[in-house]
Amino acid sequence: MFLKNCWYVAALDHELMDGRLLSRRLLGEHVLLFRGESGRLFALNDRCPHRGALLSQGRREGDAVRCMYHGIRFDGTGKCNQIPGQDLIPPKLRVPSHPVVQHGPFIWIWMGDPAKADPALIVDLPYLEDPAWKGIPAYLHYDANYLLIVDNLSDFAHLAFVHTRTLGGSEEYAFVSKPTVIERLPNGFRVERWHRNSDSPPFHRKVVRDTGKVDRRNIATMLIPGIFTMETLFVAAGGDPLAPGAREYRNCQFMTPETERTTHFFWSYLNNFEQQDSTISRSLLNSLIEGFMEDKAIIERQQITLEEDPSFQMLAILADGPLAHFRRLLGKLIDAEQATEGSQATGARPIGASA
Amino acid sequence: MFLKNCWYVAALDHELMDGRLLSRRLLGEHVLLFRGESGRLFALNDRCPHRGALLSQGRREGDAVRCMYHGIRFDGTGKCNQIPGQDLIPPKLRVPSHPVVQHGPFIWIWMGDPAKADPALIVDLPYLEDPAWKGIPAYLHYDANYLLIVDNLSDFAHLAFVHTRTLGGSEEYAFVSKPTVIERLPNGFRVERWHRNSDSPPFHRKVVRDTGKVDRRNIATMLIPGIFTMETLFVAAGGDPLAPGAREYRNCQFMTPETERTTHFFWSYLNNFEQQDSTISRSLLNSLIEGFMEDKAIIERQQITLEEDPSFQMLAILADGPLAHFRRLLGKLIDAEQATEGSQATGARPIGASA
Amino acid sequence: MFLKNCWYVAALDHELMDGRLLSRRLLGEHVLLFRGESGRLFALNDRCPHRGALLSQGRREGDAVRCMYHGIRFDGTGKCNQIPGQDLIPPKLRVPSHPVVQHGPFIWIWMGDPAKADPALIVDLPYLEDPAWKGIPAYLHYDANYLLIVDNLSDFAHLAFVHTRTLGGSEEYAFVSKPTVIERLPNGFRVERWHRNSDSPPFHRKVVRDTGKVDRRNIATMLIPGIFTMETLFVAAGGDPLAPGAREYRNCQFMTPETERTTHFFWSYLNNFEQQDSTISRSLLNSLIEGFMEDKAIIERQQITLEEDPSFQMLAILADGPLAHFRRLLGKLIDAEQATEGSQATGARPIGASA
Repeated sequence: MFLKNCWYVAALDHELMDGRLLSRRLLGEHVLLFRGESGRLFALNDRCPHRGALLSQGRREGDAVRCMYHGIRFDGTGKCNQIPGQDLIPPKLRVPSHPVVQHGPFIWIWMGDPAKADPALIVDLPYLEDPAWKGIPAYLHYDANYLLIVDNLSDFAHLAFVHTRTLGGSEEYAFVSKPTVIERLPNGFRVERWHRNSDSPPFHRKVVRDTGKVDRRNIATMLIPGIFTMETLFVAAGGDPLAPGAREYRNCQFMTPETERTTHFFWSYLNNFEQQDSTISRSLLNSLIEGFMEDKAIIERQQITLEEDPSFQMLAILADGPLAHFRRLLGKLIDAEQATEGSQATGARPIGASA
Repeated sequence: MFLKNCWYVAALDHELMDGRLLSRRLLGEHVLLFRGESGRLFALNDRCPHRGALLSQGRREGDAVRCMYHGIRFDGTGKCNQIPGQDLIPPKLRVPSHPVVQHGPFIWIWMGDPAKADPALIVDLPYLEDPAWKGIPAYLHYDANYLLIVDNLSDFAHLAFVHTRTLGGSEEYAFVSKPTVIERLPNGFRVERWHRNSDSPPFHRKVVRDTGKVDRRNIATMLIPGIFTMETLFVAAGGDPLAPGAREYRNCQFMTPETERTTHFFWSYLNNFEQQDSTISRSLLNSLIEGFMEDKAIIERQQITLEEDPSFQMLAILADGPLAHFRRLLGKLIDAEQATEGSQATGARPIGASA
Repeated sequence: MFLKNCWYVAALDHELMDGRLLSRRLLGEHVLLFRGESGRLFALNDRCPHRGALLSQGRREGDAVRCMYHGIRFDGTGKCNQIPGQDLIPPKLRVPSHPVVQHGPFIWIWMGDPAKADPALIVDLPYLEDPAWKGIPAYLHYDANYLLIVDNLSDFAHLAFVHTRTLGGSEEYAFVSKPTVIERLPNGFRVERWHRNSDSPPFHRKVVRDTGKVDRRNIATMLIPGIFTMETLFVAAGGDPLAPGAREYRNCQFMTPETERTTHFFWSYLNNFEQQDSTISRSLLNSLIEGFMEDKAIIERQQITLEEDPSFQMLAILADGPLAHFRRLLGKLIDAEQATEGSQATGARPIGASA
């Protein structure tokens, strides 16, 4: 059960180079993504309506795609425009399509009602197109429901135990620092947390020279349907965070359901101090992957645990306030969407909801 | 849901060499096939009725087989004739058996009511035992319902796109040639199609010297339950197909369901011009395998598509007339058979039926 | 459907060396087994009640374990005693625990009501702690329901056919020897069987010098829930079994369900004549593994057969009396336990019950 009338990241721009026909499952549906010869982006249901062959195993012809089973051709909107050996084209022979829009390196898709697909609804992340911010967009696949990744990102305490030697830095983080602000937004939440007078976490230590104590500020937001951004700032302990020269990071992570039990995870981790030295971006890319792998091991095992015992109800601790808010919000939106669709489906309780 | 009262190919003769106990799943049932010491063929349910051990993991003794779990022995008709340490043999302790008949290199089995198993019902393919025709019988396994292979063989248009560089020869084939005859038979269909003044397809070009334009005639039949034969003839473009010296092929392919989602595919591709040069048969064997692998990639992916979304209804184009006829015919026969058996099963709609 | 109020073997002592956190699924439940720093044994449900992370991926701290997702710590009884960043500990935040007891090299667990877990109910096998008996405890995993292993051990006739060249010795065993005693016990059965004036079976021949004919006596018991013991004695043919110098073996095998379709198989095979020559134990270990592998091939295939056709009902022969008694007994105990628990579950027919 997914929210359909919203934008999800579907691909990275470089995945559609050279006319490639990219097949990607999104919200359970197999979608063919491609850039036509004109440069336009298209997203079609990846199934020939004739015998069900994959269009992504077909051939791009201009802004169209030809199924290579019996040669039927569809334009980028899904309209059939050729059946070899047959003149009349039945109007029913067409492929559903989805709106797609590119912002920076990310390609967004709208899986719901195309009439509602307003590009202005896409989250505005100006640093993705600002040359002062450097980063390398990347992709990971999770064998887990996307909400388990959302949960993970909702509680900074896990930095202390899961990422002690990578993104976190110390177990102390969980004991001595607390969120200073938790803001419930109409479409998610916002959390601010300071960790003062601490050692730099390993990922940061690898790309800067200063080895003294630092103050670290994280401001994170999580937005519907699964968009995480975090602004991180380091200053010398006791320093002024507004003074110029602070080392800052911009983290954006996009969770897009592949199926109920798997997720596409797109992300970019940008910094404001790289200038011409691309080794910084590359070091950060690797540090983040290292950290995500630590999450992945836990989250994918959670998925198995939840599948094995669907009756298991997680027990919330205080730190789970934001994620509980987010899941409630999402549940309501899905219910409302289902009701509008006149669907019979009810009780769209997301996986692993808390008791 | 399969048609049971008909003959299916179960094995190739060389698979039963040297007293081998061959275990093969046919129409969902595990069957032990073997040739007794007397030379007679036997087919038994491959499950000891005592504790369910596989008889095919047992030992052939004359025309009998001994289960090597507790030593119980059954004759080739399935009758128990020894229980070690027990004198009385309970009459219930027996194994179901199936009629088996060999024709040429193919071993046929009857999975329905043995009383109805008339060998005269086996399709007559005289070239399989005629020394003027040469070929190498072979086997492939498909992870797909057998009807998806039947469908594939029912529309020659796929030759143009799937097999352009192997069995087809050009995409033109789909645009300029059309079936000249489509005959609906009481037990299948027959299609005739000419492709005139064209280049030879690659499989043919590899085994003949002539490089000029040719006329190519395909006459195909598809018979219940999944027996495909095709006569192919090549003459120089504009030549007389009845004049001696035409290069001809005889293709027979037998689809036998293993389960609802997997298929045994037996075949032989024979030619009338090989004489003593067996490299021709070997070249054709390899060309055909190459072509079948192209089909396999598409068909096995179709199977996944249909399983993922059982609500998907294929949309027919004009060329699908023969396959629609075949599926209707088969559906009726299965329904009739189910009704006769007094079974409660209804609606034996084969996988992926058209809307 | 398992009997829960009884002792099962959960682990071998060496599996908990060095503070290892052993995760093992028992009766369907993932259990964390560990020895605390104090030396005490603990068994906890292997799932953090907070977000479902595996406690076995956590860290042992004294007699406690800390979940390494958000740092929550539980003592060996399952009581939470620390939540980083939160002072109040909700009483609901606790992990179920199970009684565990060590006897010799085996660690036993009680999966039912802890209040009923009387260690005196554990089967008494004094040779496991008697230095006069030597053996090497070991473990095998089966992809089969544990009752199929119980069945296997209930009929000696399989020695003749499955283990001819390992544990059995000849097919003759099944024809000429019969149980002399079959005793139905309130908690299982006891079988005695002599095989007189026969060749030694291979496993015995490998560790003794005498090559003459022997009399072999097997006395086996099978006890609820799946505890097999066998006393084996060899004397020169016609000799006095009570005279000193008989070569004797003590075999104990413990079947513990992992899931409905998989089993943990713990065992030790001891001898009374090894003295200082440990090559005897090692030879026997290897002979037994060789024999068990022969069983495993058959039993795991039986499991597949039963899963494929749940309607299959095994047909009993005379030799199946003991196993039928055992399954009836176990079925009644499970039914009684279910009734006591007020569970709605009925008809706890074990897998593959005889017709």
